[in-house]
Amino acid sequence: MRCDTIWTNARLATMAGGGIGLVERGVLAARAGRIVYAGPAAGSPRFEGAREHDCEGRWMTPGLIDCHTHLVHAGDRAHEFELRLAGASYEQIARAGGGIVSTVAATRAASEDELVATALPRLDALIAEGVTTIEIKSGYGLSLDAERRMLRAARRLAEQREVTVTTTFLGAHALPPEHAGDADGYIDAVVREMIPAVAREGLADAVDAYCETIGFTAAQTRRVLEAAAGAGLPVKLHAEQLSNQHGAALAAGFGALSADHLEWLDADGVAAMARVGTVATLLPGAFYFTRETRIPPVAALRAADVPIALATDCNPGTSPMTSLLLAMNMGATLFRLTVEECLLGVTRHAARALGMAGEIGTLEAGKACDLAIWNIETPAELVYRIGFNPLYQRVRRGH
Amino acid sequence: MRCDTIWTNARLATMAGGGIGLVERGVLAARAGRIVYAGPAAGSPRFEGAREHDCEGRWMTPGLIDCHTHLVHAGDRAHEFELRLAGASYEQIARAGGGIVSTVAATRAASEDELVATALPRLDALIAEGVTTIEIKSGYGLSLDAERRMLRAARRLAEQREVTVTTTFLGAHALPPEHAGDADGYIDAVVREMIPAVAREGLADAVDAYCETIGFTAAQTRRVLEAAAGAGLPVKLHAEQLSNQHGAALAAGFGALSADHLEWLDADGVAAMARVGTVATLLPGAFYFTRETRIPPVAALRAADVPIALATDCNPGTSPMTSLLLAMNMGATLFRLTVEECLLGVTRHAARALGMAGEIGTLEAGKACDLAIWNIETPAELVYRIGFNPLYQRVRRGH
Ligand SMILES: [Zn+2]
Ligand SMILES: [Zn+2]
Repeated sequence: MRCDTIWTNARLATMAGGGIGLVERGVLAARAGRIVYAGPAAGSPRFEGAREHDCEGRWMTPGLIDCHTHLVHAGDRAHEFELRLAGASYEQIARAGGGIVSTVAATRAASEDELVATALPRLDALIAEGVTTIEIKSGYGLSLDAERRMLRAARRLAEQREVTVTTTFLGAHALPPEHAGDADGYIDAVVREMIPAVAREGLADAVDAYCETIGFTAAQTRRVLEAAAGAGLPVKLHAEQLSNQHGAALAAGFGALSADHLEWLDADGVAAMARVGTVATLLPGAFYFTRETRIPPVAALRAADVPIALATDCNPGTSPMTSLLLAMNMGATLFRLTVEECLLGVTRHAARALGMAGEIGTLEAGKACDLAIWNIETPAELVYRIGFNPLYQRVRRGH
Repeated sequence: MRCDTIWTNARLATMAGGGIGLVERGVLAARAGRIVYAGPAAGSPRFEGAREHDCEGRWMTPGLIDCHTHLVHAGDRAHEFELRLAGASYEQIARAGGGIVSTVAATRAASEDELVATALPRLDALIAEGVTTIEIKSGYGLSLDAERRMLRAARRLAEQREVTVTTTFLGAHALPPEHAGDADGYIDAVVREMIPAVAREGLADAVDAYCETIGFTAAQTRRVLEAAAGAGLPVKLHAEQLSNQHGAALAAGFGALSADHLEWLDADGVAAMARVGTVATLLPGAFYFTRETRIPPVAALRAADVPIALATDCNPGTSPMTSLLLAMNMGATLFRLTVEECLLGVTRHAARALGMAGEIGTLEAGKACDLAIWNIETPAELVYRIGFNPLYQRVRRGH
């Protein structure tokens, strides 16, 4: 079999075939950035013309996928965090310029170059842990121009680093100050002007909204999802984070790729997601940072065979986290996901949450050659350790 | 003023003088590995013969201090973690070789070289975050020879890396299998044989014990602390982690440097610590990983002016954590410590927990020139971010 590169003496966690897909004495071969073989060395094809990397028994997984982030934004909320710990009230923090409005103001004031520059250290932190694909949402611009700037900055990150970026338009993230008291009017702008524009310009790969008591109603969310469908874009939804708005079922009705957060998801929501194959993207970093106490219905999701993904939710207000390995540990520690569920949640199921299950997320012939090679004894170590990065090497598109 | 090196255009968080000790336009000068000046640039002495580093406005703090770790050990407990998440019972895990006995067996089987080699990646993770001093306990050997091996390995780490290591003898960590049912007999060996030997050989800088229902009784602990005092070694104590054994008050009676964990500490314990100046070392990583729900009495400690330190408790069973920055975030998020308390907890108060308050922990003339320089806008960012390392440069003993 002709190929460019082979990795020998690898222990593979292919994430294919239902479980983790362990292959103790494995080999992986790639040609032109695609996997052509991943499996046991015994009985493998003979590879010709290949550069060989000896993995010396190290474990190899698919490159990790962070399928829910707000990585592009300006400013931070460290001062708000400090004030809250010092006992400041909600009003005092708002008066000190805290809250999402502060991130919106900073992001609107930032140039595209500045948005790229401030996002890069966060992206680099994820890349250093083996992340090869990342989803990035807009949602701090809240005007067509500022949202476009965020999405363009996200696209440019993929030119500055060896990483795949998928973009999600999240215009319906919060109500911009100029639409105060007029949520329906803002949703008009989102569905009539913004979604058609970002779709036409190829700036968004999906559309998302924040369906919540402090976000948008189910009726407003429905209009956003309809507009996305009309523009030919797949949808995702921030659903059931702080209350049960039946957002997951609503999103599933639009064939949503994922419903995200889900602390308040009920049995109907689980059933609706299971019917459509919508991924449950859990975000334990936000749960941890905001000190929530209600955990997502993991047992029900498991019983209904809903695929579970895990992501950092990297954002300045509720999850200033840039470690997908830590998101796995929190998924296990706080949500009691198993090691296998955590590992599938940042590979195979995360790929599915991005509509990229045919392209990435497992070590299988035909998929992109995105790999992470680790200095670990067992895959469980990736979940077990806290604040430790055992990455040995990261490979994207064969390099 | 003569010096070797000066750092200009720095924003200093000196940690001196009660609070964080902010100096916006600061300069720090060192000679022969010691700070000779740290303060405002305006009105500073004229420095002669100095190599100059321009910090370009970056923040500088003392090098970080991890004052409670079990960094030296063999094996990991990832498989036990995996089994527990998969629903295994305590008995099933014990039968599968889990629990502290597995770490004791692996550590006893490891050579000194192996203990050094397996600890180095963990040490490097801490160093990469600006740690310049680390405390390392024995306690997985539980025989004189194996405990000595652990302590020697800890001392050797300081030769392999630019880091200060202080060692603590923790022979009374758990009951070794050969003493099953004979805790008093094992304590005999600890106090008559082990403590005198490690003191004589200069292997331990302090003595610690695990005073707990699943550890040693207060009476047994008292014998350990008496033996330490007899050997001229300062003491620390694992106290009040899972129940109130009045260990902190007992330790304070011996002038303990610190009492550690403290979830079940009562008002008498707080008062006893305050009288003596014993540091309260909080370990939020263990609280998080073991899913405890009772938090230490932070308000009472604060009211009594007990200095609070934070540490990783890096250990394979209950806190496989190698990030002191994350320990700060957990201290704030889980224990509601303020930003200032977290920062003092890994610098000034951590130094005091090691009996090194005169030597490290603040940026003050006379102290060792151990520094961390950060790519941050405010010191609060060090506490606020999760899984992000903004270290720009680390300096130990002036280099
Ligand atoms: Zn989000
Ligand atoms: Zn400990």
